[in-house]
Amino acid sequence: MRILLVGASGTLGSAVAAELAQRHEVIAAGRNSGSIRVDLADAQSIRSAFKQAGELDAVISAAGNVTFAPLADFKPAAYGQSLHTLGIADKLLGQVNLALAARDHLRDGGSITLTTGILADQPIVAGSSASLVNGAVEAFVRAVAVELPRGLRINAVSPTVLAEAMAAYAPFFRGFEPTTAAKAALAFSRSVEGAQTGQVYKVFS
Amino acid sequence: MRILLVGASGTLGSAVAAELAQRHEVIAAGRNSGSIRVDLADAQSIRSAFKQAGELDAVISAAGNVTFAPLADFKPAAYGQSLHTLGIADKLLGQVNLALAARDHLRDGGSITLTTGILADQPIVAGSSASLVNGAVEAFVRAVAVELPRGLRINAVSPTVLAEAMAAYAPFFRGFEPTTAAKAALAFSRSVEGAQTGQVYKVFS
Repeated sequence: MRILLVGASGTLGSAVAAELAQRHEVIAAGRNSGSIRVDLADAQSIRSAFKQAGELDAVISAAGNVTFAPLADFKPAAYGQSLHTLGIADKLLGQVNLALAARDHLRDGGSITLTTGILADQPIVAGSSASLVNGAVEAFVRAVAVELPRGLRINAVSPTVLAEAMAAYAPFFRGFEPTTAAKAALAFSRSVEGAQTGQVYKVFS
Repeated sequence: MRILLVGASGTLGSAVAAELAQRHEVIAAGRNSGSIRVDLADAQSIRSAFKQAGELDAVISAAGNVTFAPLADFKPAAYGQSLHTLGIADKLLGQVNLALAARDHLRDGGSITLTTGILADQPIVAGSSASLVNGAVEAFVRAVAVELPRGLRINAVSPTVLAEAMAAYAPFFRGFEPTTAAKAALAFSRSVEGAQTGQVYKVFS
């Protein structure tokens, strides 16, 4: 398979690349690195990335930015002024737009795999925007699965905090059992190389 | 209790008003009716509604607009151009902003109750934006519950399609067992008059 991997240089993305490159051609994409440059928050750059990538059997997002901030910092505000703006523009609409572009570009029977995270289910302090965005992406995946044409499939992978990221994140995730990027990468393999659609693969330990 | 009810004139809202007005003072609010006018898509009108309402023990949203459209109509596009814009601005950020304003205005121990819907869990054709928005609001509710100050609580009610709405919606919800607005209203009572927080009360039949 030819697989476009957005966020290929990240902690999660590099593990996904290592897992899938054993059997497939993985085309690395990212905001600042990779053979294709793509900014999830820019719909035009997503369209352009698919044009550059050529024929594809799968697209994976292992990317997505959100704002972490205490609830007290969030004020009632319109999109653009809200602290939810980054998460909505990037990890939410960015992954939605990647999926919509993939719908138009993937070969018949291709697959789309997005990334959410444990905060959709299990909140932490300062994580409300991440929770909101992850919950949106998971419900979107379940919904879109029933409408995708040409045998296309879509799933999400929801990992818990990664052991590789605990140096930075441990204070926010006390008591959470971390997983490894390599273990989370298996869920991406399951989505791409399996046959299910509309699933959220949770990797919670 | 003094309860601000947004969407009080709707099918669901009027049943919620009937249930709660038996025991509480319900202040009706809405875009085009009610003693207080509020547009969920306008953060300033939400702030203004709380100022007009005075002291409150609870706020309920039985409102929220989203776009229903076949997946084929959705194109990769930024916020503002995307068919997801209405749902994000209104049912998602509108309810988020209502909750954030309520955090600052409710009396200690007050409650916030938002509305989602069965599409968060069980998709229908043309419902992907509703699913996305409902999933976002439910995850937001779970997350915000762990950070709300002053004993404030927050829950969501997720009803299936209402019997009263089947004249319009039946073709989209074939095989779904409708509930009644009166039965769904009980879940709002449970949220407001109960003691739980971070819950999604599903009323699926």
